[in-house]
Amino acid sequence: MIDERAQLGENVQIGQFVVIEADVYIGNDVEIDHHCVIKEGTIIEDGVKIKSFSLLGNSPVKNKKMARKPREDLQPLVIERDVVIGSHVTLYKGTTICEGALIADHVSVREQTKIGKQSIIGRHAMVEPDTFIGERVTIQTGTYVTGGTTIEDNAFLGPCCAMSNDKYMASGRGHHKGPVIREGAKIGHHASLLPRVEIGKGAVVGAGAVVTKDVLPDTTVVGNPAKPLITKK
Amino acid sequence: MIDERAQLGENVQIGQFVVIEADVYIGNDVEIDHHCVIKEGTIIEDGVKIKSFSLLGNSPVKNKKMARKPREDLQPLVIERDVVIGSHVTLYKGTTICEGALIADHVSVREQTKIGKQSIIGRHAMVEPDTFIGERVTIQTGTYVTGGTTIEDNAFLGPCCAMSNDKYMASGRGHHKGPVIREGAKIGHHASLLPRVEIGKGAVVGAGAVVTKDVLPDTTVVGNPAKPLITKK
Amino acid sequence: MIDERAQLGENVQIGQFVVIEADVYIGNDVEIDHHCVIKEGTIIEDGVKIKSFSLLGNSPVKNKKMARKPREDLQPLVIERDVVIGSHVTLYKGTTICEGALIADHVSVREQTKIGKQSIIGRHAMVEPDTFIGERVTIQTGTYVTGGTTIEDNAFLGPCCAMSNDKYMASGRGHHKGPVIREGAKIGHHASLLPRVEIGKGAVVGAGAVVTKDVLPDTTVVGNPAKPLITKK
Repeated sequence: MIDERAQLGENVQIGQFVVIEADVYIGNDVEIDHHCVIKEGTIIEDGVKIKSFSLLGNSPVKNKKMARKPREDLQPLVIERDVVIGSHVTLYKGTTICEGALIADHVSVREQTKIGKQSIIGRHAMVEPDTFIGERVTIQTGTYVTGGTTIEDNAFLGPCCAMSNDKYMASGRGHHKGPVIREGAKIGHHASLLPRVEIGKGAVVGAGAVVTKDVLPDTTVVGNPAKPLITKK
Repeated sequence: MIDERAQLGENVQIGQFVVIEADVYIGNDVEIDHHCVIKEGTIIEDGVKIKSFSLLGNSPVKNKKMARKPREDLQPLVIERDVVIGSHVTLYKGTTICEGALIADHVSVREQTKIGKQSIIGRHAMVEPDTFIGERVTIQTGTYVTGGTTIEDNAFLGPCCAMSNDKYMASGRGHHKGPVIREGAKIGHHASLLPRVEIGKGAVVGAGAVVTKDVLPDTTVVGNPAKPLITKK
Repeated sequence: MIDERAQLGENVQIGQFVVIEADVYIGNDVEIDHHCVIKEGTIIEDGVKIKSFSLLGNSPVKNKKMARKPREDLQPLVIERDVVIGSHVTLYKGTTICEGALIADHVSVREQTKIGKQSIIGRHAMVEPDTFIGERVTIQTGTYVTGGTTIEDNAFLGPCCAMSNDKYMASGRGHHKGPVIREGAKIGHHASLLPRVEIGKGAVVGAGAVVTKDVLPDTTVVGNPAKPLITKK
C-alpha cells in the first residue's frame, strides 16, 4: 500500500503488507521487510535496511494528566544512509539517525533526538526526547536513556542501565535535565544515574552502581551510593 | 478485514491491514492506525486513538510448567473514552483501561487489571494480572508492575522500577501479593520493591533503593537495603 | 501470503496478513495468528501456537562499529512440538525452542541459543546469542540474559534481572562469557550478575543484589556487593 505521492529510488525492495504514506522519500538500494509502516514525510536515504513490524515517523501522543505536552511542529524523521533498523522498532518524527547507525529490535526512540554515526542502540533500549547521542556510542540491550541526556562519542553503556532527569519526581519543580556522559566513559550493566550527574571522560561506573554525584574523569566508582573504587595494594 | 459481526460507530478511521474480529464494539470518533488487531468482543468507547501494531483483547497462554494457570472465563477488554494507546501494545482480556488514560508504545498489560482515569503507563512498561492502578498515576518507561499490586491515586513510579510478589520464588509456598503504593507516594527510577511492602502516603523511595520493609508515610528511604534518609543539619 | 514452496501439515490455522516464506515447514495442528512473519526455512513442529505480530527466523544484522560480527552460516530456527509463542516476539535463526516451552509477549531471542523443554521465558525478556537454557527453567518478565550464559534445569530468575559477559566493557580485552546458574538456583528480581560468576546449585540471590563473586551451593546472598546472609539467632 504505497501512496502515489511517495518517492522511491532505484532497487528498493519492499516486503508484504508494507504501508508507505504520502511524501515519504526513499533513496536507492533500500530494503523494507514485511509489515513495516513508514509515516508521512519520513526521509530514508540510500542503503538503509529495515526489518519487519517497524514504525518510522510516529507522532507523539498526550493525555490531560501530562505535565509537559509534546511538541507538535516536528520536522520529519531522517534515516541517513546505511542505517540498519531491526524489527518492532518505533522511531518518532523530529529525530535523526545518522549514517551507519544500528537500531536493534524492539527499540523505541522519541522525537528531537540525534543518534550519531555508527552508534549502536541495543535491543529493547528506550531513548526519550531531546537527547543527543554522539558517534560510535554503544548502548546495550534494555538500557533506558532519559530525556535531555548528552552522551558523547565512543561512550559505552552496558545492558539494562537506567537514569532520570527529574530530581523532584513530577512535583513541577526544577528543569528536567538528564546525565552528561563524556567521551569514552563506560557504564556497567544495571547502573543507575541520577539527574544531571556528569560522568567524566574515560570514567568507569561499575555494574549495579547508583551514581548520585559527578564522577571525575578516568575514575572508577562502584556501589550504592557509588564511591570511588579503592584499589587494594 | 472487519468481521461483519463487529459494530462500528460514526467517524471511525481505520488504517491499512487492520483486523477487527467478531462482536467488537467501537464507538464514535475512534482512530485505529495501520496493522492493529482487535480481538473478539473487545469494547472501545468514543474518542479512543490506537497506534500501529497494537493487539487488543489478547487471551492468556499457558504451558505444563506453569504453577498458576491463567483464568479462562475472562470478561472482554474495555477501553473507555478518550484513551490513547501507542504502537506495539498488547492488552489482555478481562482488563479495563479507564477514561483518558495513556498507554504508551510497547507496553503490555495482562488480564484482570484496572488502570484508572488519566493515568499514564510509560513506554515498554509491563503490568501483570490482578493489579489495581488508581487515577492520575504515572508509571514511567520500562517499569515492571507485578501481579496483585495496588497503586493508589496520584502515585508516581519513575522509569525502570521493579517489584515482585513471590517471597519464596516459585517454591509453591505462600500467597502471591505485590506491593501497596499509597496515595501520592513517589518511587525513584530503578528502585526495587520486595513482595507485600507498603509504601506510605506521600513517601519517597530514592533511585536505585531496594525496599525490604514498609516505608512510613511522608518518609524518604534510600540505599540497599533502603533506610530512612538522615538529613544533615 | 504463503509461498508455494512452504510445506504445511493438516489442520493448520492461519490468521489474516500472515507471511510464510519459502521452505518453511509447519507440522499438524499449528495455530498462527494474524500478522505473523515466518522467515525462510523455519521449522515449526506439531501443536505450536503463535500469537500476532511475531517474527520467526530473523537474521542477525551488523554495522561497521560492531566488534563481533554475527555468524552468517546459521541453521534454521526450530520450534519443537507444543511450544507456545506470544505476540510481538522476535526469534532468530540458529536457535532451538524445545518441546512445550513458553515464549511470552515481546520477547526477543538471538541466534545459537537453546531453550529447554517446558521452560518459560517471561514477557519482554531478552536472550543474547550462544546461550544455553535447561529444562523447566523460569525466566520472568523483563529479565536480560547475556550472551554465553548457562542456566541449568529448574533454575528460577525473577523479573528484571540483568547480567553481562564483558568484564572490560568493549575494550577488546578478554573472552566474553556470561554467568553460570546451576540447577535449581533462584535469582531475586532486579538482581545483577557480573560476568562469569557461578551461582551454585540451590543458591539464592536476594532481590536487587549485585553479585560480583561466585555464590556457593545452597547459600543465600544479598546486598551491593552481595554477601552471604547472616541469619539472626
